[in-house]
Amino acid sequence: MKLSIIRSACGSLRIHQARPGCRVSGLSRRCPPVSAASGRLIVRAASATTSSGTSPKLAVNFGKQSQKEDGLECDSSLREVVQSTKEALVALQRKNPTIQPVLAIIQAGEDDSLLETNKKIAEKIGLNVTQICLAKHCSEDEIVEEVLKLNEDPRVHGVYLHLPPTSLTHRVLNTLKPEKDVDGISYSNMGHLVQGDPNKGLVPPIASAVMDLLEKHDAPLEGRTVLMIGAEGPLGVAMQFQIERRGMVALKSHWSFNNLQRQVMQADAVVLLGAENIDIPPTWVKPGAAVIRCEPTLETDEHATEMSSKSGLGYLTAAYRIQNVVRSSSRWLQEQQYRQWWLRSLKLQPLTPVPSDIEISRAQTPKPVDQLAKEIGLLPEELEAYGRSKAKVRLSLLDRLHTQPDGNYILVAGITPTPLGEGKSTVTIGLVQALSAHLKLNSFACLRQPSQGPTFGVKGGAAGGGYAQVIPMEEFNLHLTGDIHAITAANNLVAAAIDARMLHEATQSDKALFNRLVPSVNGVRRFSPIQMARLRRLGINKTDPASLTPQEVTTFVRLDLDPSKITWQRVVDTNDRFLRKITVGQANTEKGQIRETGFDIAVASEIMAILALADSLEDMKNRLARMVVGTSRCGQPVTAEDLGVSGALAVLMKDAIKPTLMQTLEGTPVFVHAGPFANIAHGNSSVLADKLALKLVGRDGFVVTEAGFGADIGMEKFFNIKCRASGLRPNVVVLVATVRALKMHGGGPNVSAGAPLPREYIDENLTLVAGGCHSNLRKQIQITHLFGVPVVVALNVFKTDTQAEIDLVCQIAKECGASDAVPCHHWAQGGRGSLELAQAVNDAASRPSNFQFLYDLEMPIVEKIRTIAQKVYGADDIELSPEAKTKIDYYNQQGFSSLPICMAKTHLSLSHMPEKKGAPTGFILPIRDVRASIGSGFIYPLVGTMSTMPGLPTRPCFYDIDLDPVTEEITGLF
Amino acid sequence: MKLSIIRSACGSLRIHQARPGCRVSGLSRRCPPVSAASGRLIVRAASATTSSGTSPKLAVNFGKQSQKEDGLECDSSLREVVQSTKEALVALQRKNPTIQPVLAIIQAGEDDSLLETNKKIAEKIGLNVTQICLAKHCSEDEIVEEVLKLNEDPRVHGVYLHLPPTSLTHRVLNTLKPEKDVDGISYSNMGHLVQGDPNKGLVPPIASAVMDLLEKHDAPLEGRTVLMIGAEGPLGVAMQFQIERRGMVALKSHWSFNNLQRQVMQADAVVLLGAENIDIPPTWVKPGAAVIRCEPTLETDEHATEMSSKSGLGYLTAAYRIQNVVRSSSRWLQEQQYRQWWLRSLKLQPLTPVPSDIEISRAQTPKPVDQLAKEIGLLPEELEAYGRSKAKVRLSLLDRLHTQPDGNYILVAGITPTPLGEGKSTVTIGLVQALSAHLKLNSFACLRQPSQGPTFGVKGGAAGGGYAQVIPMEEFNLHLTGDIHAITAANNLVAAAIDARMLHEATQSDKALFNRLVPSVNGVRRFSPIQMARLRRLGINKTDPASLTPQEVTTFVRLDLDPSKITWQRVVDTNDRFLRKITVGQANTEKGQIRETGFDIAVASEIMAILALADSLEDMKNRLARMVVGTSRCGQPVTAEDLGVSGALAVLMKDAIKPTLMQTLEGTPVFVHAGPFANIAHGNSSVLADKLALKLVGRDGFVVTEAGFGADIGMEKFFNIKCRASGLRPNVVVLVATVRALKMHGGGPNVSAGAPLPREYIDENLTLVAGGCHSNLRKQIQITHLFGVPVVVALNVFKTDTQAEIDLVCQIAKECGASDAVPCHHWAQGGRGSLELAQAVNDAASRPSNFQFLYDLEMPIVEKIRTIAQKVYGADDIELSPEAKTKIDYYNQQGFSSLPICMAKTHLSLSHMPEKKGAPTGFILPIRDVRASIGSGFIYPLVGTMSTMPGLPTRPCFYDIDLDPVTEEITGLF
Repeated sequence: MKLSIIRSACGSLRIHQARPGCRVSGLSRRCPPVSAASGRLIVRAASATTSSGTSPKLAVNFGKQSQKEDGLECDSSLREVVQSTKEALVALQRKNPTIQPVLAIIQAGEDDSLLETNKKIAEKIGLNVTQICLAKHCSEDEIVEEVLKLNEDPRVHGVYLHLPPTSLTHRVLNTLKPEKDVDGISYSNMGHLVQGDPNKGLVPPIASAVMDLLEKHDAPLEGRTVLMIGAEGPLGVAMQFQIERRGMVALKSHWSFNNLQRQVMQADAVVLLGAENIDIPPTWVKPGAAVIRCEPTLETDEHATEMSSKSGLGYLTAAYRIQNVVRSSSRWLQEQQYRQWWLRSLKLQPLTPVPSDIEISRAQTPKPVDQLAKEIGLLPEELEAYGRSKAKVRLSLLDRLHTQPDGNYILVAGITPTPLGEGKSTVTIGLVQALSAHLKLNSFACLRQPSQGPTFGVKGGAAGGGYAQVIPMEEFNLHLTGDIHAITAANNLVAAAIDARMLHEATQSDKALFNRLVPSVNGVRRFSPIQMARLRRLGINKTDPASLTPQEVTTFVRLDLDPSKITWQRVVDTNDRFLRKITVGQANTEKGQIRETGFDIAVASEIMAILALADSLEDMKNRLARMVVGTSRCGQPVTAEDLGVSGALAVLMKDAIKPTLMQTLEGTPVFVHAGPFANIAHGNSSVLADKLALKLVGRDGFVVTEAGFGADIGMEKFFNIKCRASGLRPNVVVLVATVRALKMHGGGPNVSAGAPLPREYIDENLTLVAGGCHSNLRKQIQITHLFGVPVVVALNVFKTDTQAEIDLVCQIAKECGASDAVPCHHWAQGGRGSLELAQAVNDAASRPSNFQFLYDLEMPIVEKIRTIAQKVYGADDIELSPEAKTKIDYYNQQGFSSLPICMAKTHLSLSHMPEKKGAPTGFILPIRDVRASIGSGFIYPLVGTMSTMPGLPTRPCFYDIDLDPVTEEITGLF
Repeated sequence: MKLSIIRSACGSLRIHQARPGCRVSGLSRRCPPVSAASGRLIVRAASATTSSGTSPKLAVNFGKQSQKEDGLECDSSLREVVQSTKEALVALQRKNPTIQPVLAIIQAGEDDSLLETNKKIAEKIGLNVTQICLAKHCSEDEIVEEVLKLNEDPRVHGVYLHLPPTSLTHRVLNTLKPEKDVDGISYSNMGHLVQGDPNKGLVPPIASAVMDLLEKHDAPLEGRTVLMIGAEGPLGVAMQFQIERRGMVALKSHWSFNNLQRQVMQADAVVLLGAENIDIPPTWVKPGAAVIRCEPTLETDEHATEMSSKSGLGYLTAAYRIQNVVRSSSRWLQEQQYRQWWLRSLKLQPLTPVPSDIEISRAQTPKPVDQLAKEIGLLPEELEAYGRSKAKVRLSLLDRLHTQPDGNYILVAGITPTPLGEGKSTVTIGLVQALSAHLKLNSFACLRQPSQGPTFGVKGGAAGGGYAQVIPMEEFNLHLTGDIHAITAANNLVAAAIDARMLHEATQSDKALFNRLVPSVNGVRRFSPIQMARLRRLGINKTDPASLTPQEVTTFVRLDLDPSKITWQRVVDTNDRFLRKITVGQANTEKGQIRETGFDIAVASEIMAILALADSLEDMKNRLARMVVGTSRCGQPVTAEDLGVSGALAVLMKDAIKPTLMQTLEGTPVFVHAGPFANIAHGNSSVLADKLALKLVGRDGFVVTEAGFGADIGMEKFFNIKCRASGLRPNVVVLVATVRALKMHGGGPNVSAGAPLPREYIDENLTLVAGGCHSNLRKQIQITHLFGVPVVVALNVFKTDTQAEIDLVCQIAKECGASDAVPCHHWAQGGRGSLELAQAVNDAASRPSNFQFLYDLEMPIVEKIRTIAQKVYGADDIELSPEAKTKIDYYNQQGFSSLPICMAKTHLSLSHMPEKKGAPTGFILPIRDVRASIGSGFIYPLVGTMSTMPGLPTRPCFYDIDLDPVTEEITGLF
């Protein structure tokens, strides 16, 4: 018995800690002498010759005539149970050394001898015990409060409600989690027994002890009659079913029953429950019949408790209780092992023609998110619901499952995108629908959260489409769980801090600044921890503000930001083009400190990239602190921590770091988390979502995650940036292509929004298809091979595609080195339409993946850029602008040279020229500028101009969006 | 039997609708002839002379020798149950005419005769039935899916699982809500029986029917033995407990039991369950003993079903099943009536000295919000949890409880604020803690949601303080449930739409604009509903785009906004002073369309005021559409609907409209909803939160809501604006004062932040206290009296206050007309410290409130302003600037003249001069300008300059804010 858990609660609570090493002295205690027939459990009137000699009641008597020592029957059972439970516990801890099961006791009043017995047995077995002592006359509320706390406590695997029977109300019994109800008196446990599943629930320890004694009986019990007197409530039911299960006839009676004598005389065994002060005269008992008196749950009569708890049965019951705790821990551990999910998939009945995305989404009722969570093995305490169909998942899951092997890690990438759309998101969702709902393989999709701004600009959701969608799609596309709002708040707090600080530095002396930044509170000046961090970075190793030299004060108080070199922009999650370039500070209150700056759309914030790359709360906090917001007049980078704002940023982002759980149309799980830009950032969903999902799917499961843009951008960054940050290694790449896009890469005409689609894209054209396959598709497959990962080509089929075109793509793809290439029809059919792809991915995942990075981080920045340009894009070389060269020199000097590279290049071509389709060659990649995202941890060279703030068209799609105020249904959203 | 509910589900589902008017033909059917002893229930071998003559089984036989007709025993019971259930249903519907209880049947396969029986009885009683027909071999998942849907369906009060016994798994039984389990086989219902509470749960109808028959038996049953054969599972347990409850001995046996014959021979009654094809020879049965054969739950043997279902017992069972449905509806209705909450209050153990707010908040574990919701009578489907400690409440609650009388409506207002702080929020929270947790009166606090920006600027939370707080306070002060983020998104979408529209109008011809705004989609041009609304406002009653004249096209496509008259500002929820005045549109892409504008803090958005005043989703949507964003060049107001954005705004705000449920430190409920500015807007929390809370507390309950600033501003607007919008009438005003503030109003010296507090505020000074009471406190009490509402003065006690000072305030307050005046100590003691206040409020609420508005809406705008200035502020008169006059003329001309007035005046004085404390007189109130908030529905005159964007100080409190990455605990927040 090790330490108790310390918990704070109302005044009535105290914690007892069992004395380590105290002996279970009662174990060898002798039972009262026996005086009856051979080899049988016998009864003896307590008023006769019990050793205590003082009680007027029946004692618990048993034993075999053939044995010399009394009470041995009980002793041997006890020894067996203690021994087997001990072994079970040791085995459990061998499997999982961190597990320390705890029995929690909720008691009303002081310890009594029953409790002592339980604690002794627990110690003997090696189980930890914690006691919650309530007042003797505590209220139901107080008990419920403690039960709720213990329900939530993952360390506690059993709760012993050592309370008066009147306290064990319907509410109390229904509040306790059945799996922690080691006394087996909750309705759920009773239900398992009644249904005939004793192995699923927990059997009341008294019932087990009584059965044990009855079974030790020499004669066959089958058909014998057991009379239970005073067997009330769930315990009575449990005992009855246990008796019946062994083929005996259970008869219930009570002390006041008229015919009690007749009943006793006919019974082969009598079990006495409750603590009535009534005797059964020995003359009533049939010769050779067993009489077993059970301990009361709680006895106000001190003497009675004393007696029954010290009895052998008291010890045996305690041993079975502890056995239940170990059993419960063992099941709990089992639950956390890899298993195939018991996933209730939602049925799809695809319609033709396929309705609009929002109509399909609305026609399906999502499972309650807490139910989905339970199905995939999440504990209730790991879930934070946001409404009924989305929930955040706590990162503590990673600790709980850290020994669990990861599942297979699948990346969905695409060929070079065209205006016709390739459908990577629908492939991702269709694939998991097929894997989970049809092949019954645990599978998770990890998707990016889309920006809300474009939802109201130009049509196009990000939740997939057709019968491969995340539902409810309007939740997915709108606020979701507020992560982007949190990013906006955090980003703009940094911006406000920058301008306010510049104003205060411009208008105050060093002394005034220092007095305000390190104010005297009750006569004492102290640096805050954030200020201490800045001092350390400045090389000032002092903690007493008074000890700073004037020069040090100046260095400390003046960030001395160069207004022309502030790189931090404000953000909004709105398509507001008029904020691209603005002048701020024009009110009189800002004293002429005007400057030009701008707003980006929220997802372009560096904080979004950090959210996507952080692998823990601490990592995120450190990255937020490291963010460089600008440069001082003397050329030093100024960070968020210098502004003193890094702690507040972590506070604002504390919920955003938890991935959001949703579901597909077929009820399979999806994580939605982070959605950084794919040009100025790395364009992948979060490391944490992938990590959580890989643990949840387990060994044989699949996590399908998606990379933005074509494989040359999204996949390259996934490997070189995201996998570096996470340490995860992908097993398979799924490369998405469409016949139409391949036709365009093969030389098909341009298309423009609004204009009718050229015939080439509607009619069969094998030449164009072949052209696209041999140029862009081949090149993208080759890029995948650079990283040593098997690739499966998924051809996302449109209704105008001909069979010959489909066959041709699959044939060439395989010739180009794809492990497999299959058509998929998830958009029209859901998971069923992607079964072939799921099978191909499953096959490919069984092949070895020889993953390797494309470049070494220690290569010079220029060489890293050149490697990507040549090997991935197919450029002859790169050409740096003077500005780019200067920046690279600066970053080298600042020690940022060993960061990975995040190319900001057009996604519409492998080259820097959007109009060059296929696989261009013979070009020099111009590097216009180079920037750094230090918190995210990458350098991003600019190849061309990237817009970080979209605009609204003349007729934004908000013209069609409406809400029915009665049904609350949204119309016109996609 | 009326209509069935139509539901869509997977292929296997069909809906049966019982033929209206079909007769219950089986009711008068004769039971098989009887051939046994007098006045007893008798048994007869089915193989002998049953009327059907074909079954080899025992029939259900009973009857009295003295009666001529067979089966009458059963008939009379049936008649009684049908009649009483019918009457119960009629009584129920008389009480609540809208209730139409429904029995839902989940069946596998076609209707069988058992189902027909149930439908007939349901029709006889007048109960609606809906059937969900699954495939004969449906999966557990399919059953669970249907059960889950029925659980959620508020119209269904009973679910009959007419399924094979193997389908009634632990999971299925545990999924069905116990209160809908009219077959009484869920574990919870079994638990109620086992615990001896048969009136709380639902008894299985078969058990009731069998008991009914046994009780009809002439001889006393007490002590008799009833043998149950084949009584498995929960049904067996229920029957056994019912038998035992009536003093009989229940004995369970099974068909294969060796000693069955002996058992049967000894039994006084035999109940046969299950559908085994085994007979009990008549010779076994003791003369005069009753034998009752129960129908099987579901029988694959068509014939057996046929027989047993047509038996009298089949009908009786069906009748008891329907009785359970009516009982369940009745309980459901009861649940929704007014009742005292079963609120589990959280214990407080106040420490001295009082720790920091966040330490106190963190030391208390909030109840799970779903538990709190249940305690206050919310249905699970009315709750949308956001994490574990906050949840949104659906507005459907208002429909459900629309017949419920409202509780008492209490407003907390204050004397004129000083920099020393009065503590209206802590009084509000302390008061509900006292009312709910101590006086056990249902009470709700309705609070405003604070802006997040200031959280990181200057210290000071809005969740109360000390031991009167809303917890977890960090959730309250940070993102909460994202309402302010939604407002930001909606507000800024309007702003982006304005600038984009001006750009597009400036750069496109009328024709181009029209073609883009009303594009041809598949050759068809259509106006969207939002565009139709604009056309109607323009007086163009056309629906065909082609039919517009060129002049009409121009009018339609050109909003022609005057850039200098745009009143709409952008917002951020950050203290970003550099955004107060900015120039936008400076990027080349915006083609020189630059203009000056600015950002407000998010809570200053008109959308916030709308959220606070809307009384339904539809009302909010209409208000959003009416918002005026600027004026056209020809002087017409331009609205959000003109921009086409109103539907999108409603979509963005669809969740924000639902109030957020949280709790106080003592576990009592709080709504947090909306937080409009108290100067340019009305400064009160939402109408909807108050309305929901008034229904939830019920007749004798209390809703305590808070108004911003002093009573002259917050209370005046509460009455004249908020109560006008809501139609609610307040019962009591609580006027908060502090000794320190009264001293300042009585002539005490000024205080300044950072400087030590003058002695006057620390030492006893009765003169200053009396001065403050006779000036400001008296005046504020008089203002309350203008509205005819009783006022209780709450003196928020600080530790430096002396008893003489406290007594003096209370004495003068009462002299000035307060109903009562009491000191309160909630900050240091929690609810216990506000008990006296709670009692005073309870007393005052029993007095009549003669509420009246201060002015009539039809008075001219100037007169309304003058009335407020003279009667409330004590001004001699008002003086309008020329600009104000012009604006008033313009609003009159636009038809806005009958809106209420929302004065934007300093809160630091009753006058417009912040330094004038006490109750100034002899001043003329200058009206600098007048503005309109048309969506909110008020005119706001500006008395002085109001800042709508706070700034950050040199050392914002974010320097102290941090997050422990391991414990996730926040430090330094307040």
